[in-house]
Amino acid sequence: MKISRRGLLAGAAGAVVAGKTAATQAPSSDPSKVRGKPSRALGQRAAAEKPQRQVRGAASSGTPHQDLYGTITPADLHFERHHGGVPEIDPKNYSLLIHGMVERPTVFTLADLKRFPAVSRVHFLECSGNFGGRAGSAEITPQQLAGLTSTSEWTGVALATLFREVGVRPQATWFLAEGGDAALLTRSIPVSKAFDDALIAYGQNGEAIRPEQGYPARLFLPGWEGNSSVKWLRRIELSDRPFMTREETSKYTDPMADGTARIFSFLMDARSLITYPAYPVTLTRGWIEINGIAWTGSGKIVRVDISTDDGKTWAAAKLQSPVLPKAHTRFRYLWNWKGGEVVIKSRAVDETGYVQPTKEAVIALRGISSVGYHTNPITGWRIREDGKVVYAAEPWS
Amino acid sequence: MKISRRGLLAGAAGAVVAGKTAATQAPSSDPSKVRGKPSRALGQRAAAEKPQRQVRGAASSGTPHQDLYGTITPADLHFERHHGGVPEIDPKNYSLLIHGMVERPTVFTLADLKRFPAVSRVHFLECSGNFGGRAGSAEITPQQLAGLTSTSEWTGVALATLFREVGVRPQATWFLAEGGDAALLTRSIPVSKAFDDALIAYGQNGEAIRPEQGYPARLFLPGWEGNSSVKWLRRIELSDRPFMTREETSKYTDPMADGTARIFSFLMDARSLITYPAYPVTLTRGWIEINGIAWTGSGKIVRVDISTDDGKTWAAAKLQSPVLPKAHTRFRYLWNWKGGEVVIKSRAVDETGYVQPTKEAVIALRGISSVGYHTNPITGWRIREDGKVVYAAEPWS
Repeated sequence: MKISRRGLLAGAAGAVVAGKTAATQAPSSDPSKVRGKPSRALGQRAAAEKPQRQVRGAASSGTPHQDLYGTITPADLHFERHHGGVPEIDPKNYSLLIHGMVERPTVFTLADLKRFPAVSRVHFLECSGNFGGRAGSAEITPQQLAGLTSTSEWTGVALATLFREVGVRPQATWFLAEGGDAALLTRSIPVSKAFDDALIAYGQNGEAIRPEQGYPARLFLPGWEGNSSVKWLRRIELSDRPFMTREETSKYTDPMADGTARIFSFLMDARSLITYPAYPVTLTRGWIEINGIAWTGSGKIVRVDISTDDGKTWAAAKLQSPVLPKAHTRFRYLWNWKGGEVVIKSRAVDETGYVQPTKEAVIALRGISSVGYHTNPITGWRIREDGKVVYAAEPWS
Repeated sequence: MKISRRGLLAGAAGAVVAGKTAATQAPSSDPSKVRGKPSRALGQRAAAEKPQRQVRGAASSGTPHQDLYGTITPADLHFERHHGGVPEIDPKNYSLLIHGMVERPTVFTLADLKRFPAVSRVHFLECSGNFGGRAGSAEITPQQLAGLTSTSEWTGVALATLFREVGVRPQATWFLAEGGDAALLTRSIPVSKAFDDALIAYGQNGEAIRPEQGYPARLFLPGWEGNSSVKWLRRIELSDRPFMTREETSKYTDPMADGTARIFSFLMDARSLITYPAYPVTLTRGWIEINGIAWTGSGKIVRVDISTDDGKTWAAAKLQSPVLPKAHTRFRYLWNWKGGEVVIKSRAVDETGYVQPTKEAVIALRGISSVGYHTNPITGWRIREDGKVVYAAEPWS
């Protein structure tokens, strides 16, 4: 077992432990023999690392969960969804009007917003349509299955601070949030959310929010469906009733099994996604760490169960601490794949006691016609005998 | 006070509240009137946002703290420091040898490292030379004063896991960490740190670590001086004594007031930095939120005191939760600048009871000749009568 250091470093030693081999490098490519690059004003990814969003037509793109570690989503890989494209807004021209049932209708410039006391919080943001599509194939990645969720550290001013500044009247129970993009996206939001944890966010992962995330400022409603966190926010109007906008009547409603449609279903219930192993990985036998992300709009994830027998039995995964409320939580589960076809699944439980449902439970509640918004069934991956990993089931097929 | 919504949105209403004006936009530049950009595979910053590292010669660059929010440092703005340039390492050729006083000398490929159970933790990384330079001018930014510290979510395998895998012998008390760059940087590290919280990190802020951060894998020693977290790590050798390398004898030692030199001073004691208001901001009177970052290698920050009278009196700032150990912690302090020249300062206190010292206390302990490593005096910013903010003092002048 004793080995020569010189030999190893030269790459000549070959295998010293079964399955582990020393690297072989031509002398000319030995990075210790050539001076490296100088420092520079902006870093770039290593040439071999090419994570990309999956572009789904002009109006959305998804996060490459299979390529990511931990919980933070790099800003340039945060999923996007827009209804009129990404506007270019000059921050010097930006303003936010708050009016309606308020004592002091006010226009805030970006500098005004930044002068107020700020808060920073790590939260997920998820499109209500995430997990809602028909996969169409077993050869889909975590990104294709559920790329429309991402987690960032968001910084901004509490909407409650602005509502106190303008003097929201007691009878105001709803507000309209209007975007300044070509879609003029509008949603009605209960005032209580503003006094709970809503932000007007201008910072994301330490820097200014990106254009496709609402630059220079957006509404951010932690734990609620993404489209309610109106981007490029230009106007808030206080009222004593919801505004019944197009986006909350013709769209973003949930057909139910009894033929009615649920409206104002803002909350994103608990979900989970195994990101490794997943398509297109090919596994080799032995110990691996199954891992992925779980999240809930209801607060903290308290448990993620893993099944390695297609849902027959379950065991608790480890949760990476700190577990933050309304944020992706990384779970990990050490497991020995001994070969043979296996289906692995994950199931999230949140602090309200809510348990991520099976596909059958979702269908019973919502009806098969409910493909689309707020569908959060347990999903999984099939490890084939040859080690190839594919999506285990087509939930809505 | 009642205003016309139509007038406001057209930008014609002018001031509705003293000091707050509606934006004026020519119709042709109204972003709500033109279709925006389609989704794309990689996002980019808004055109008006140009945060950059400050390049300090070929071997280092600093983080633009004055441009940042919250606690996470975007990966392309993480400070860099290297002694032989940034090498280009092909991840397929990467390997890490662990040998010396171990039962099973082993070479790990990158895939081997990634197959082990992983952990993710948010930690600062700071060059021991941060704060150590002579400013030379009052017109310096937080970036110029203390740009050599950054915070990321790091992901990797616990070094303890690898040490158990190779069977570190009981008599091994130190290990050598050797980088694969042209500098072949080497440091001796106590084995106890490996069993405390050291990582072999391959992930940073959700993605693969960047080339200048040690791609594809580096040692990461939470809370310890940056250069001990050897990048492009290619070899670890276990021993029963330190190796007395060039970097820990001729460099990275701390001259003391009594003429001796302190060696193996790994720990980064508590520091703080006000990032707003700071040069080059010009303030206007009224309420502002003084804010900045505090951190300590000893665990959690428990208090940050703010003085607005040049250190005569102090009051506690608010700490942004969650306060994570060995990570930048954002502090905030609401304050009304009524005009007149004022010096504002910050002072960090950590969970061990350590209080960030004054310049005088540092000099008494270390001697004025100690400019360089491990200098963490209280610093501050002078707000001049005209609102211009400049660096308050030259600690080592």
